[in-house]
Amino acid sequence: MSRFTPVALAHASRLLNHGPTILITSLDPQSGRANVMAAAWSMPVEFTPPRIAIVVDKNTWSRELIERSGQFGIVVAGAGFADQTWAVGSHCGRDGDKFSRFGIHAVTGPVLGLPLIEDGCSAWLECRLLDEPGAQQKYDTLFGEVVSAAADERAFINGRWRTDIAPELRSLHHLGAGTFLTTGGEITARPVMESP
Amino acid sequence: MSRFTPVALAHASRLLNHGPTILITSLDPQSGRANVMAAAWSMPVEFTPPRIAIVVDKNTWSRELIERSGQFGIVVAGAGFADQTWAVGSHCGRDGDKFSRFGIHAVTGPVLGLPLIEDGCSAWLECRLLDEPGAQQKYDTLFGEVVSAAADERAFINGRWRTDIAPELRSLHHLGAGTFLTTGGEITARPVMESP
Repeated sequence: MSRFTPVALAHASRLLNHGPTILITSLDPQSGRANVMAAAWSMPVEFTPPRIAIVVDKNTWSRELIERSGQFGIVVAGAGFADQTWAVGSHCGRDGDKFSRFGIHAVTGPVLGLPLIEDGCSAWLECRLLDEPGAQQKYDTLFGEVVSAAADERAFINGRWRTDIAPELRSLHHLGAGTFLTTGGEITARPVMESP
Repeated sequence: MSRFTPVALAHASRLLNHGPTILITSLDPQSGRANVMAAAWSMPVEFTPPRIAIVVDKNTWSRELIERSGQFGIVVAGAGFADQTWAVGSHCGRDGDKFSRFGIHAVTGPVLGLPLIEDGCSAWLECRLLDEPGAQQKYDTLFGEVVSAAADERAFINGRWRTDIAPELRSLHHLGAGTFLTTGGEITARPVMESP
């Protein structure tokens, strides 16, 4: 069971700060059909207001839905969700609903009504697509502003990732071809002796 | 001692695929002064040609140098380089050369002549700035095309990150305030049983 609680918008970019592999969700505004894909390429671009960038190929169904609806969801997958992450990343939603196909339970976002995932995942964000046609066309890079976010309190609490996060909720970092690194130990930087 | 060997351009985006914290280097085209900063926010946007995006605040000296010179370097810091990464991320290069100040040895990039770092780091890339003024002004997002890359063969070889990478060369993933996660174990996704 997930234990999701709201994340303050001022802390939302921290959910992606460490470069995790994510799931991107979308909704067909006409039919209401939901879609989900995996993406290794995302990053925050601003803390306040919380804004992020994602890369979504122009040939994907997700791209079409995001451009038509003007919104998308982001889910931070847990290490225990690696198989499903790879599965939704290597199949196309045009061929059938990936949520039911791979047994993934969706919850509904509170602000935009986007399909989101909690079981097996550590956090989610609802985003409004920002208008930046140049980067979108040339580099498949979509900018979004976060309008709501939540995280599993066993993974992220009081605006910070927990050091005692359960192994299955650690983030995934895609190396390629379905192989991911998970996160390991924590390091806190110490001051460097400066040259005179 | 580092053991850097060239990385094929077709594999260059893989160096950033897993979301590591990076160092961004730059060079003043007039004075020849070098600069280095830390950045948690970067991502590939294309494999072929290898293109990446980075976020560099418009108030930084790095941003000024990158825009004036039309180029920048990226260095993937190793876990053993966390202290220096934090140090160059929390001081401004206008106040003095951070390479000499923090005892960081620079090597010279083969194509663009950019300052790069090998000791304590796992890989570097030389990039030409691409012209995308909208994203640059609005979201501090700079796109670049990789023109040369190399990696320590103890970390990345034959186009892949090694599974037996030494702990001090594992990548850093910034949580905030000088605290980083390093990478841990590897997971390979298995097929998900599909619903009928």
